[in-house]
Amino acid sequence: MEELVGLREGSSGSPVSLRELWGPYPRVRRGVRGGLEWLKQKLFCVGEDWYFLMTLGVLMALISYTMNFTIGRVVRGSGIPELKTILSGVVLEDYLDIKNFGAKVAGLTCTLATGSTIFLGKVGPFVHLSVMIAAYLGRVHTKATGESENKSKQNEMLVAAAAVGVATVFAAPFSGVLFSIEVMSSHFSVWDYWRGFFAATCGAFMFRLLAVFNSEQETITSLYKTSFRVDVPFDLPEIFFFVALGAICGILSCAYLFCQRTFLGFVKTNRVISKLLATSKPLYSALAALVLASITYPPGVGRFLASRLSMKEHLDSLFDNHSWALMTRNSSPPWPEELDPQNLWFEWYHPQFTIFGTLAFFLVMKFWMLILATTIPIPAGYFMPIFIFGAAIGRLIGEALALAFPEGIVAGGVTNPIMPGGYALAGAAAFSGAVTHTISTALLAFELTGQIVHALPVLMAVLAANAVAQSCQPSFYDGTIIVKKLPYLPWIRGRKISSQRVIVGHFMNCTITTLAKDTPLEEVARVVTSTDLAKYFLVESTESQILVGTVGRAHLVQALQAEPPSWAPGHRRLRDLLAGGCPTEPVTLQLSPETSLHQAHNLFELLKLQSLPVTSLGRAVGSVSWVELKKAISNLTNPPAPK
Amino acid sequence: MEELVGLREGSSGSPVSLRELWGPYPRVRRGVRGGLEWLKQKLFCVGEDWYFLMTLGVLMALISYTMNFTIGRVVRGSGIPELKTILSGVVLEDYLDIKNFGAKVAGLTCTLATGSTIFLGKVGPFVHLSVMIAAYLGRVHTKATGESENKSKQNEMLVAAAAVGVATVFAAPFSGVLFSIEVMSSHFSVWDYWRGFFAATCGAFMFRLLAVFNSEQETITSLYKTSFRVDVPFDLPEIFFFVALGAICGILSCAYLFCQRTFLGFVKTNRVISKLLATSKPLYSALAALVLASITYPPGVGRFLASRLSMKEHLDSLFDNHSWALMTRNSSPPWPEELDPQNLWFEWYHPQFTIFGTLAFFLVMKFWMLILATTIPIPAGYFMPIFIFGAAIGRLIGEALALAFPEGIVAGGVTNPIMPGGYALAGAAAFSGAVTHTISTALLAFELTGQIVHALPVLMAVLAANAVAQSCQPSFYDGTIIVKKLPYLPWIRGRKISSQRVIVGHFMNCTITTLAKDTPLEEVARVVTSTDLAKYFLVESTESQILVGTVGRAHLVQALQAEPPSWAPGHRRLRDLLAGGCPTEPVTLQLSPETSLHQAHNLFELLKLQSLPVTSLGRAVGSVSWVELKKAISNLTNPPAPK
Repeated sequence: MEELVGLREGSSGSPVSLRELWGPYPRVRRGVRGGLEWLKQKLFCVGEDWYFLMTLGVLMALISYTMNFTIGRVVRGSGIPELKTILSGVVLEDYLDIKNFGAKVAGLTCTLATGSTIFLGKVGPFVHLSVMIAAYLGRVHTKATGESENKSKQNEMLVAAAAVGVATVFAAPFSGVLFSIEVMSSHFSVWDYWRGFFAATCGAFMFRLLAVFNSEQETITSLYKTSFRVDVPFDLPEIFFFVALGAICGILSCAYLFCQRTFLGFVKTNRVISKLLATSKPLYSALAALVLASITYPPGVGRFLASRLSMKEHLDSLFDNHSWALMTRNSSPPWPEELDPQNLWFEWYHPQFTIFGTLAFFLVMKFWMLILATTIPIPAGYFMPIFIFGAAIGRLIGEALALAFPEGIVAGGVTNPIMPGGYALAGAAAFSGAVTHTISTALLAFELTGQIVHALPVLMAVLAANAVAQSCQPSFYDGTIIVKKLPYLPWIRGRKISSQRVIVGHFMNCTITTLAKDTPLEEVARVVTSTDLAKYFLVESTESQILVGTVGRAHLVQALQAEPPSWAPGHRRLRDLLAGGCPTEPVTLQLSPETSLHQAHNLFELLKLQSLPVTSLGRAVGSVSWVELKKAISNLTNPPAPK
Repeated sequence: MEELVGLREGSSGSPVSLRELWGPYPRVRRGVRGGLEWLKQKLFCVGEDWYFLMTLGVLMALISYTMNFTIGRVVRGSGIPELKTILSGVVLEDYLDIKNFGAKVAGLTCTLATGSTIFLGKVGPFVHLSVMIAAYLGRVHTKATGESENKSKQNEMLVAAAAVGVATVFAAPFSGVLFSIEVMSSHFSVWDYWRGFFAATCGAFMFRLLAVFNSEQETITSLYKTSFRVDVPFDLPEIFFFVALGAICGILSCAYLFCQRTFLGFVKTNRVISKLLATSKPLYSALAALVLASITYPPGVGRFLASRLSMKEHLDSLFDNHSWALMTRNSSPPWPEELDPQNLWFEWYHPQFTIFGTLAFFLVMKFWMLILATTIPIPAGYFMPIFIFGAAIGRLIGEALALAFPEGIVAGGVTNPIMPGGYALAGAAAFSGAVTHTISTALLAFELTGQIVHALPVLMAVLAANAVAQSCQPSFYDGTIIVKKLPYLPWIRGRKISSQRVIVGHFMNCTITTLAKDTPLEEVARVVTSTDLAKYFLVESTESQILVGTVGRAHLVQALQAEPPSWAPGHRRLRDLLAGGCPTEPVTLQLSPETSLHQAHNLFELLKLQSLPVTSLGRAVGSVSWVELKKAISNLTNPPAPK
């Protein structure tokens, strides 16, 4: 206690006090105090970023868990496409506003409470919620410390927040980070990746810790624990089937992406539906939900769709390590009246249809039901349904294989029966990977199930699925960006030599508006009123056109309004405005007409730029922005018709 | 057969032949031919990159496996620091020369054949070998197709090659890619990451496939399979011990890195040793090997070091899922005369010393033996020894905990004994992660063992270890770069606001040599002979100093030599040389004095640049290269003394 008192005195910066000199063990106390000071300094120098990331992780875990808990007892937008756009440098207003937070949480809870009726998940909205909190915390921090806002730092935090979002849904820190990186950006720094890991680990730890505290689990384990055979989880020839499954998932994902984009476009353009959506969203939602609910009604068609299972139970049952086909070959259990928690897979079995009929019917129905569900304007995620859909594809093929080779594939004397659960795992990873154009879904499958015995086959299935999907269709998120007409920068695909020869001079915007220092104020006023650019290039003189910097329109307007109304026309020039305090910004980076398209594209992607001036011999000759780059890239793939 | 003949005719571009018209089933044949053409086109449009990556993966797997196989029956450089330097844009000659390949493979096989005597691994050299092959294949491809060399593509291939190197040693594609990215670069593109996965998967698949073909394994499984309890692998309170273990590993790694760097510096500066190393490398190697071998001689001191175990057996035994302390508490097995393959852990037990004595002795001895071994000029990897060292730390702490809580930590009624193998896993990941400043070692631990049940505790241990190590010491690879004085660009650590205010104008190199178009040839000749820059800035005129482009020294010298020797002094100017065909290069990117240090640093890191011109109002006013950037960054952390 005395140490503490002394410490408080000492740390308040007062000189050595009498008590300190005369108290017992002055040396020890000084040592302790020094140590604490050192620790304080160390903790402080670690940087508040890490505390920030930890707070974010813990908060998101609390929300995720509370939501799961609420659903267990009892506003449209997937979130990821918008975030992807923001991270590439565009400002979308409202998206990061904390005011939407409560509505989103409540809406999402309601959506998820419907279970597998509407068949939607929570990954996308969780990414959105996490990003909202991060933006809010960032603003609070900026206000508290008085630091100026730092754009690049904000971006780093948003990437970390996206990782937290994924990690707190699945309690999977590794794949959370990798998935958010793959989906969000085309380039990233190792530094971001470390932040992401830290935040995601905090989030995942907290999320699973709550399950332990609530006595659901004895310790921190995986969400969908599987118990696949470890010794020989699959035989070598099965690798071929895994790759084939990946290719099938890739083809189906292309079909899904195409139908989904087409239907979304149809809903946007169809006069009746778009009017309905614009005027009475609840009516449209209710109609769509009614269609979905009547189909999934368990005593009706729903019994062929395993619709009594929740999303979690769907996955649990599909990853089951027994072969249903072999178990029901000789005996046919009746359709159970009540859900049997020990044998969830009974839901997938129907005496007449067999499991093959049920699984195939599930796939066909969910295909269009999922597409219909994505048009309902409610906050919901589309990752989880896609993951389950893929698992059902894999299960179907796995069961077919198990039936075709009931003794397993004989290789090396010992026979091991085929485990359809492994195929379900590979199918889930491959289909979700193909739809989102990511590879980290393979890792997600392992983190979710706690087993990594299928490492190579699952990875190969995901690679095969991605090879098919990426060469045919834009990803789910890019597709949504295209349909919603959000701004984005396409990739330069196919690294052909011809694309290396395209230079900025070929595609830059040559009709730029420059303001010279000797421009008369009348001319400045005319330019400001007749154009609506945010910034003008400032050049040394009308004759030389040497680029000096940029000047903001708002500042110009302000300075012009402050001018006395009675200036003699032709006498005062822009130079006088600048001397009068109108601020200008220096140009920190400039291209030349000889810069290649590749270099310009890299610069824009890496530095999240909006536009850059082009100079030749110091003269401003043009500008390049997203619009020009996009046009140049699309001309690469579809060369313009010769004029 | 007929189809094939027809196909060959058709595909050779000849017009429709008689045979084609009159042969049987003309439609079917045309359909088949069309399908094959389509497939050919599809395969071709996939790009030869993917074939290249597959070849690379398969080749490295073959080498890795053959080497393992050779060692099972029967120079200097870790490779990674040099590769890191090359990837940041510097050209190190010889490093990528295929001629060193054979020598490296043979040398490495010999090193590894010594087993745990010299206690070295093969990760680093394998990365080097893989990069050599990639560079060689790239050159062959360039020659065959006649395309010009593409620097950025080469870099992409080198990153993928590094991933293949790691993946074929451990058969771990995920961590192979992530580890190589974390170690090699500070920024990377998702595109590189996909390439890396593809190549690493091919490599890992081939590597494990060979084990199956050689009847060592029944199917493709992990390298060091563990059998940890799955239900409750650890109790919740143990998380605390895992994090503490991580912190301990971090502190020990700092000690190791410090001693290693100091000793390497000592060897370089000590007159006797450096002379010995320069004149008679074999003698030094023999002396060091003799010291190491005499200590690890199994009947002598070696029996306290488990030195009869190979590197692989070290890991297998340390990851054992029984507690040795509990098993030897009541009974004390005698020291076995022969190695018992079923009970490898007996090697770690000594009746008098107990396992704690042996493990502690192992740690103390291997600490300095490993540092000594790193100075031997032989090709060898230092990752594997560090991984094993970490596993021993974890095992020691795990056994101590198992002895302290023999009933396990009671939480929630059921008691589960502590598994020291889990601590060994966490220790291995944390120590190797701290030494290399990476997080992906956690993932490596799971991929190696095929179990991911310890996901969160291991990740938290690795994060704790990294937090300690990164704030105190440069990584193993950066340390080697510093000691070897290889060029590299430091990070901007500690994102303080003060660093945002530093602009290019503060630190650029202002004493630049410009050549104006109107410079007399005598002056050009003087400049070319008196300076040794590779490139000169070309400006419009001596007066205006408007930057036009760059001109290479070699080209200038060539053009000067081609001039008739009798030109009248003062008459001919640089302009005439340029008109005569001396090539110039346009400036594609330029900075201004107002560009911030952060922006310039990002540009250099992201675009792998060597130097950039600085212009103000179009005039060349300076240049920025690595040297200036490095100085500016080091001034940020150690502000220069006021003059």
